Amino acid sequence: MKDIAVLIERFRAGDPRALARVISFLENEEPVAEYIMEQIYPLTGQAYVVGITGSPGAGKSSLVDRLITLLRQRGETVGIVAVDPTSPFTGGALLGDRIRMQNHATDRGVFIRSMGTRGSLGGLAHTTGEVVKAMDAFGFRWVIVETVGVGQAELDIMHLADTTVVVLTPGAGDAIQTIKAGIMEIADVFAINKCDLPGANKIAAEVEMMLDMQGKRSDWRPPVVKTSTLDGRGVSELLAAIENHREFLCQDKTLREKRWLRARNETLELAQYFWQRLLSLELTNINPILEEVANRRKNPYSGAREIVKYLFDKYHQHWHQFEMVTRS
Amino acid sequence: MKDIAVLIERFRAGDPRALARVISFLENEEPVAEYIMEQIYPLTGQAYVVGITGSPGAGKSSLVDRLITLLRQRGETVGIVAVDPTSPFTGGALLGDRIRMQNHATDRGVFIRSMGTRGSLGGLAHTTGEVVKAMDAFGFRWVIVETVGVGQAELDIMHLADTTVVVLTPGAGDAIQTIKAGIMEIADVFAINKCDLPGANKIAAEVEMMLDMQGKRSDWRPPVVKTSTLDGRGVSELLAAIENHREFLCQDKTLREKRWLRARNETLELAQYFWQRLLSLELTNINPILEEVANRRKNPYSGAREIVKYLFDKYHQHWHQFEMVTRS
Repeated sequence: MKDIAVLIERFRAGDPRALARVISFLENEEPVAEYIMEQIYPLTGQAYVVGITGSPGAGKSSLVDRLITLLRQRGETVGIVAVDPTSPFTGGALLGDRIRMQNHATDRGVFIRSMGTRGSLGGLAHTTGEVVKAMDAFGFRWVIVETVGVGQAELDIMHLADTTVVVLTPGAGDAIQTIKAGIMEIADVFAINKCDLPGANKIAAEVEMMLDMQGKRSDWRPPVVKTSTLDGRGVSELLAAIENHREFLCQDKTLREKRWLRARNETLELAQYFWQRLLSLELTNINPILEEVANRRKNPYSGAREIVKYLFDKYHQHWHQFEMVTRS
Repeated sequence: MKDIAVLIERFRAGDPRALARVISFLENEEPVAEYIMEQIYPLTGQAYVVGITGSPGAGKSSLVDRLITLLRQRGETVGIVAVDPTSPFTGGALLGDRIRMQNHATDRGVFIRSMGTRGSLGGLAHTTGEVVKAMDAFGFRWVIVETVGVGQAELDIMHLADTTVVVLTPGAGDAIQTIKAGIMEIADVFAINKCDLPGANKIAAEVEMMLDMQGKRSDWRPPVVKTSTLDGRGVSELLAAIENHREFLCQDKTLREKRWLRARNETLELAQYFWQRLLSLELTNINPILEEVANRRKNPYSGAREIVKYLFDKYHQHWHQFEMVTRS
């Protein structure tokens, strides 16, 4: 535990290696990570979190790279979490990362981390949320969460963001896929990337039409910004759109509400996660019940009830054990 | 409860409307569903479960339709669960479904059900697993689970299958996407659909090459079957490949092991699900804790621990309440 105290001290002092180490603990779901997070939690709540999502190949990584450059020119610090729910790789193995690493490797105002599905016991969205919090606590004033794809995992991850940017490209089927995935509902800003390609105006018009059709959700109508990462066209307009949304949320008090709701959900998810932890810790003890089910001598429903009862009885009597498990 | 007894009786007697009602209970996660599932559980374990997955537009629905026709010609009964993890629609609203409905609407040996993400408290894979079990218990000898896409949700769902068919098409990027999603590892059979299009041989060769590269996983090497749903070419070869795999699993005792493992996992997932159920039932009582966290007077970690302690203490003392909740 002395090592951990030193680690936290280095983290507070702004040592990026301490941040990297904390993130590794989080990714590997080491019990000590929770203790650390509990210690640094009071430092969170300062960063503005931007989510960037879209189909593979939409150019999200290059767009994020352009945004980083823009923010750095203003002297703002940026943490980036690149999440690929379909990839088993984690810890900086993604291609997009390596490109960005080259551009920002020596810049201490930028910290980039890739995450895949490894160690997703508590859910990728949960781990991503913890990494975002670590970057926030470390002092980054912007945290960008980039996810590949448009599935449920990406939607869950996007709930971590204050502003969500959906990146589309002039290409067949993109718009239709987007409606289908329910991403229209979470988009605060649309970026039509690769706007130099033919069809950019068409897809922009399609999105505007969809926005017209879905009617007024709130006083915020998601703007549609055309960008090109080839020449950087539209990127400052995109950042302006993000900042307009931020201002809208602040004035509207929505930002407070959003974060309030997120804290509630986070707590419920942690309660869920603690339970999962108990289940895996107790696997040896509940194994006889599982065996009976597997051999069809007991149905899964009775088996599951017995497991719950076993855990309730045990940890009701030995609560301190549970505390140790979740605090260590 | 008398209604439920009647429903179960009608289910056992083979009334398809009773099956439809049970599935609706499952989809809506009504507590009574568990009671019903517990009653019909002894009837399960007879069906052979085939999973079919692949990118959107790969022609999975048409391929499944062809397989149904083939199986019906042999007099075998088939239940189909079409799952779209990216769709909020459920209960037969999908396009592919409507096409199939037309072909098999009057055939009582076929039952088709679509599922989306609605009511995914316990996870889509969990609900899908329960629907598969209901179809199995109802008496279908084949259950086909079809999923759209290649994300994590689809991978989870495919773990329900005894044999998994991955459908690819001659098209850019398909093969690369597939490796990325870790789907190579779960494929027992590859179908190269739309094999009348140019590039079919190329992608078949690519898959064979990937299989060569990944080395020997087991004594089963996934066959690559070229199919066309235009003229039905290759579909009987596909079914033969599925049946070869089935025979392989039976001889190898892998089928028993697979199902044994699945029963264990199912039980753990139910224990997880029961916990989630408790959390949502107790939301009013744990609300004061959540409020404190949301107002930053308490950190989420302490809050979550308090919630766990509250639930353990309450249900340790009032176990019968928990039993009622999960048995109702």
